Amino acid sequence: MSYKIIGQSVERWDAIAKVQGKADYTADLPKKNVLYGKILRATIAHGLVKKLDVSEALKVEGVIKVLTPDDLPDLKFPTAGHPYTLDPKLADIADRNILTKRVRLYGDEIAAVIAENELAAEKALEKIKVEYEEFPFYLSPEEALAEGAVEIHDGSKNLIASTKAVVGDLKKGLEEADHIIEGEYKTQIVQHCHMENQIAYAYKGSDQRWVCVSSTQIPHICRRILGEAFGMPWGKFRVVKPFIGGGFGNKQDVTIEPLAVAMSMAVGGEPVMVELQREESIAWTRVRHAISYKVKLGVKKDGTITALEMDAVSNNGAYASHGHSIAGKGAGILQSLYKMPNMEYNSKTVYTNTASAGAMRGYGVPQVIFAMESIIEKAAKELGIDPVELRLKNLVGPNTENPVSHVMFFSNKLKECVEEGMKNFSWDERKKQADSQKTGDFRRGVGMAVFAYATGVYPKSLEIGGCRLTLNQDGTVKLMVGATEIGQGSDTVFKQMVAETTGIPYDHIYTDMNTDTDYSPFDTGAYASRQSYVSGMAVRKAAIELKEKILDAVKKFDDIDQLHTDIVNGNIVYKHSGEVIQSVGDLALKSYYDLANGECITAEVSNNFHSNSNAMGATFADVEVDIKTGKVKILNILNVHDSGHILNPLLASGQVEGGMGMAVAYALAEELRYDEKTGAPLNNNLLDYKMPTSMDLPDMETLFVEEDDPMGPYGNKALGEPPICSPAAAIRNAVLDAIGIEVDELPIKPQKLMEILKNNGIV
Amino acid sequence: MSYKIIGQSVERWDAIAKVQGKADYTADLPKKNVLYGKILRATIAHGLVKKLDVSEALKVEGVIKVLTPDDLPDLKFPTAGHPYTLDPKLADIADRNILTKRVRLYGDEIAAVIAENELAAEKALEKIKVEYEEFPFYLSPEEALAEGAVEIHDGSKNLIASTKAVVGDLKKGLEEADHIIEGEYKTQIVQHCHMENQIAYAYKGSDQRWVCVSSTQIPHICRRILGEAFGMPWGKFRVVKPFIGGGFGNKQDVTIEPLAVAMSMAVGGEPVMVELQREESIAWTRVRHAISYKVKLGVKKDGTITALEMDAVSNNGAYASHGHSIAGKGAGILQSLYKMPNMEYNSKTVYTNTASAGAMRGYGVPQVIFAMESIIEKAAKELGIDPVELRLKNLVGPNTENPVSHVMFFSNKLKECVEEGMKNFSWDERKKQADSQKTGDFRRGVGMAVFAYATGVYPKSLEIGGCRLTLNQDGTVKLMVGATEIGQGSDTVFKQMVAETTGIPYDHIYTDMNTDTDYSPFDTGAYASRQSYVSGMAVRKAAIELKEKILDAVKKFDDIDQLHTDIVNGNIVYKHSGEVIQSVGDLALKSYYDLANGECITAEVSNNFHSNSNAMGATFADVEVDIKTGKVKILNILNVHDSGHILNPLLASGQVEGGMGMAVAYALAEELRYDEKTGAPLNNNLLDYKMPTSMDLPDMETLFVEEDDPMGPYGNKALGEPPICSPAAAIRNAVLDAIGIEVDELPIKPQKLMEILKNNGIV
Repeated sequence: MSYKIIGQSVERWDAIAKVQGKADYTADLPKKNVLYGKILRATIAHGLVKKLDVSEALKVEGVIKVLTPDDLPDLKFPTAGHPYTLDPKLADIADRNILTKRVRLYGDEIAAVIAENELAAEKALEKIKVEYEEFPFYLSPEEALAEGAVEIHDGSKNLIASTKAVVGDLKKGLEEADHIIEGEYKTQIVQHCHMENQIAYAYKGSDQRWVCVSSTQIPHICRRILGEAFGMPWGKFRVVKPFIGGGFGNKQDVTIEPLAVAMSMAVGGEPVMVELQREESIAWTRVRHAISYKVKLGVKKDGTITALEMDAVSNNGAYASHGHSIAGKGAGILQSLYKMPNMEYNSKTVYTNTASAGAMRGYGVPQVIFAMESIIEKAAKELGIDPVELRLKNLVGPNTENPVSHVMFFSNKLKECVEEGMKNFSWDERKKQADSQKTGDFRRGVGMAVFAYATGVYPKSLEIGGCRLTLNQDGTVKLMVGATEIGQGSDTVFKQMVAETTGIPYDHIYTDMNTDTDYSPFDTGAYASRQSYVSGMAVRKAAIELKEKILDAVKKFDDIDQLHTDIVNGNIVYKHSGEVIQSVGDLALKSYYDLANGECITAEVSNNFHSNSNAMGATFADVEVDIKTGKVKILNILNVHDSGHILNPLLASGQVEGGMGMAVAYALAEELRYDEKTGAPLNNNLLDYKMPTSMDLPDMETLFVEEDDPMGPYGNKALGEPPICSPAAAIRNAVLDAIGIEVDELPIKPQKLMEILKNNGIV
Repeated sequence: MSYKIIGQSVERWDAIAKVQGKADYTADLPKKNVLYGKILRATIAHGLVKKLDVSEALKVEGVIKVLTPDDLPDLKFPTAGHPYTLDPKLADIADRNILTKRVRLYGDEIAAVIAENELAAEKALEKIKVEYEEFPFYLSPEEALAEGAVEIHDGSKNLIASTKAVVGDLKKGLEEADHIIEGEYKTQIVQHCHMENQIAYAYKGSDQRWVCVSSTQIPHICRRILGEAFGMPWGKFRVVKPFIGGGFGNKQDVTIEPLAVAMSMAVGGEPVMVELQREESIAWTRVRHAISYKVKLGVKKDGTITALEMDAVSNNGAYASHGHSIAGKGAGILQSLYKMPNMEYNSKTVYTNTASAGAMRGYGVPQVIFAMESIIEKAAKELGIDPVELRLKNLVGPNTENPVSHVMFFSNKLKECVEEGMKNFSWDERKKQADSQKTGDFRRGVGMAVFAYATGVYPKSLEIGGCRLTLNQDGTVKLMVGATEIGQGSDTVFKQMVAETTGIPYDHIYTDMNTDTDYSPFDTGAYASRQSYVSGMAVRKAAIELKEKILDAVKKFDDIDQLHTDIVNGNIVYKHSGEVIQSVGDLALKSYYDLANGECITAEVSNNFHSNSNAMGATFADVEVDIKTGKVKILNILNVHDSGHILNPLLASGQVEGGMGMAVAYALAEELRYDEKTGAPLNNNLLDYKMPTSMDLPDMETLFVEEDDPMGPYGNKALGEPPICSPAAAIRNAVLDAIGIEVDELPIKPQKLMEILKNNGIV
């Protein structure tokens, strides 16, 4: 389709305020008489709090109250930012208390101090005396599942879930194969490291309801979980999300909000603020699941895949959070990528005593793609086929039903992504250059990987988007969505959508500063790369409705039939000639102030979206391995995406570069580590946790292969998460090309690589 | 009609917060880095600012900027809180600049200081040097209209407007009369004295639009006037109204908001707060029009009124504000009260150099009722007919078209109000007692008066109400209106309406803390006693729609036809048996989370209301005049109202008592006075301006004669303003009864009464 505003790199509506430092984030919002809450964290990794002595803490000047588990409702609640489900069997696991006596990880939340200032609160924390009973702790799923292991959650056997996805007949598929390739792959725990740490404050509103202002991706879900955490009707809570400094899935979990509300409840509704430190955010909010894979791939001589057997074991840490849905997701994703008529995908998600794993950009796909794209490379080598060719041979094409999710997927330009990518990356030339640099201190290699990624969570979960539009008196439009701007630019794109569909100029559309469960139409929030797709469909429908109502008003006030009128660039025009009849502003004035027929024109849509589309793409990487240091330098890296019609190329490139940056760090550097002796996190700070600075990142290239997806509201598909899915695998494959050794564990950090190089006799 | 929640004295939803001091008014809202604005006011009553030297002011520590008229757009705007009109001929007069060099009253706004704190701003005001050219000034319409008077507004001839309303044939009517009674009546300038002075602050929002938080009765109109004051599209402004401490019409004018915005504009969008002092609010915001009447009443021997000629001259002060609509309103009101087949009502509204008169509770009706109910009393005396009988003989009945407004009015229980009032007041007994106390130091008298009052402004102006309802997941309802809670309890009554119509309990309805032009449905605001009627109709329609959608959802999810279902007390029930099918909460949960058909249920209505109804009533007063001091003591006073169905008796009684209190002060004490030599206000403070304390007020009685009005959304009609309409006239008539002398000028203060008593030889 051809669009006017969609596809333009219009300026973000919040750009000026952000550049000037005038966009109010939660910490910036004006407050008065606010109290501060701080959390006392366990110093054992597993066990029981036998005694909490808070008497000395209460003596600290400025301390108002100390909360212990006994002060709070004895109610377990889930924390995952999933839509509520009417089917109790599908509900998220409720395994969390606001504060706990049962310690499940080092740093678990066992008490909290409310004080007039942060310093007093921190001093008080030091004065609380705790006596523990310690249990053995488990940092890996293997330990946690071992015979006789203490149950981290009673009755769980430390297994959150175990599922098997079957396609065709694995046994038959393996029999048909000429080669069976086997491999084992491991990924590590990493953390989101969004710029703004978790922060929330709560108070009692003038209507005696509880208001929680929070840096959350999921205001409407957060409201529900507050209801669950306190066993109170959900309507008794109101959640407000101001500007937010990134989330990447970590703020798709409810972490500090119930505590903030509990604190305010403890002080008669006065406002209490909880702001985590970076150390707390890294180690004690959510992390990416470390997943290990055992893979068996059956392939014919000609490269045709006949079978895949994959066993995934996922470390979920101390609490269920998003739980098994992340490891479980792999099956459907792989079937969206490669034609594999016979498959068994087994996955287990396991409680351990590490940080709770939850949603993180990519939601399990970077892990499974690392495993899949590694075994593909191994198969190509064994078959003597070019690995790119092997991939192209087996790719799922367009208009295909996914045999796991049973969703029909239409557009699919992955083949073109690979072909365009190779061209753009000068793949053959780089390969030749790399082949000529396989000795010496700096060895070069190229590698690539492909991925697929669904948009939103249909048909597994609810997909509702909401939008309300109001025509202002001057012909401008107020746009309200419940979808959540978390820095990714969704509100900018929604403005484009309204402008595109109504014909009212982009800068005449005004968005909200906040998402507010009291005002913003219901929408489940920012996750699953769903917003421009699911919420976008609600926006489009509301915009269509608004435009219709405006043209109905032209009929009413000026008696020109709707068949003859259109809106172009903020004017009502004759469709046949383009002649301007009047501005939308002039019409709006009539629609408000006509004594006989005036009425404010609004449109509100709540849209249940029964659709999903696959986004896909590829990464091409060119690396140089310093075999004296084990350091991998990325010479060049390119992501190519089929995300359907690109709504705003500048924002889209920003998304892709951000995702690639995260992925580079995932491939080469980041890992949250634990002390084997105490179970304490070792590097939960930005000095020791090796997050790249902008100086550490390579130059990154972005390419889009555009085709309108027939289901997307403007031909668009997922783009927020896809960029992180394939780079780690592509880099790993480039390293393989450079040194000829398969590195099957992430991250490929210098220490590890040096060990491998030594073990293989290269140095 | 019989209602369940309507008619109950339910507790105000904001009662707890207000009692605890936790309801945030504009001054209470948390702010950061706010600057303060103070206004330099002219010290002449009429003239020109020749020179403004701000150099010393700028040197005061903490002063950021001084604004003069030259710094602001040279644009005139209107300030009246009337709905915008598409007909330029009907538009309010745009005669106001944000700051002015042309001084039109003592205290006119000629410069403004922005400083870091109020003290610095005040110090700086003192350092601004002003040179004036002085013109003669006029404190009365007579002076302003005199030959050769300087025009206060160029080209105006100091006459804002002059109109004549004609019914029948005055000449013929006077000819038919057996008696022609003449009189002259004068009312004074009084001020609203709402608890919370004018306060507003403004800042640039993150979307580069201008936000003005203000204690206003008319957020949506204020937004429009900001647009007009700056010559900018209205959508560029957002107005937010927090809790507000009374308005009584004074905050139905835009006073400080444009200056607050101009100040923020002058400092790059930083927040700037303007809060008036009581001295400023009394003298330099708005006041009630002092109106003088010349009256000629033609009456037959039997008491039948044949003709009325009335000439009203209204002192509008320095700026037009609501202008002529107040004096002009009398014609229609009188025709709603008495059958007067022949009438000429002439009115003039005149610029003078006193405070600008604008809207004030009663909007001109206390004045015209004072004149009318005085002449009626005079006529009764002349005819020798009991004045109550004379009134009853001439009252307009139900189901009558008003010959001035051409509106058909249906319900009318004024006759019953008089009859019930007499009974309740023990009128005959009191009269007998008063008759026996006509000598001595304390002379007693009884008096009464009647009034009529329209509801809202149809058909003269636009009447749109708006309401949006959202069904929460727990079956509670979020209620949003653009109508404005200003302390009168409108949101409480709207909650009752939603509960009544939906069947969802009152305490399951949640209202807004703020009215916000960005979110709240369009509604013109709090004035003309319109909200429970005009906005109430929108609320009722939205509630009907919401209920229908809920029952549609029951059909969708549970396949029970809408014909068989109802909502009672928060449950979906079978209509025939009352058996509970499920709670609204359970249904709401399905409606949100059903995978296939879930959708958020909302209802939004923008309702153009083509209707008006007359409220009416009577006051009965029993007074004792101390002829040694001239002090009038009210022994008892009763207001009887036909306001249709009473929505909340407790709130209604509060309204009536509040209005009666204001009226008692209007009758006996309050008057804003001016220095004849300088034109400066003499008593613009609460020490010298004689507003009664609760100790000064008599015991007041309230009675309602209820009949459902067929047009009101719940049978209700105006109640906010009616209570102030007739007490002053009733008290005046009681004084007449006590001392036998007609006092034809308000207020009946001791000094004046002593003079009259002396002049009449009584003392």
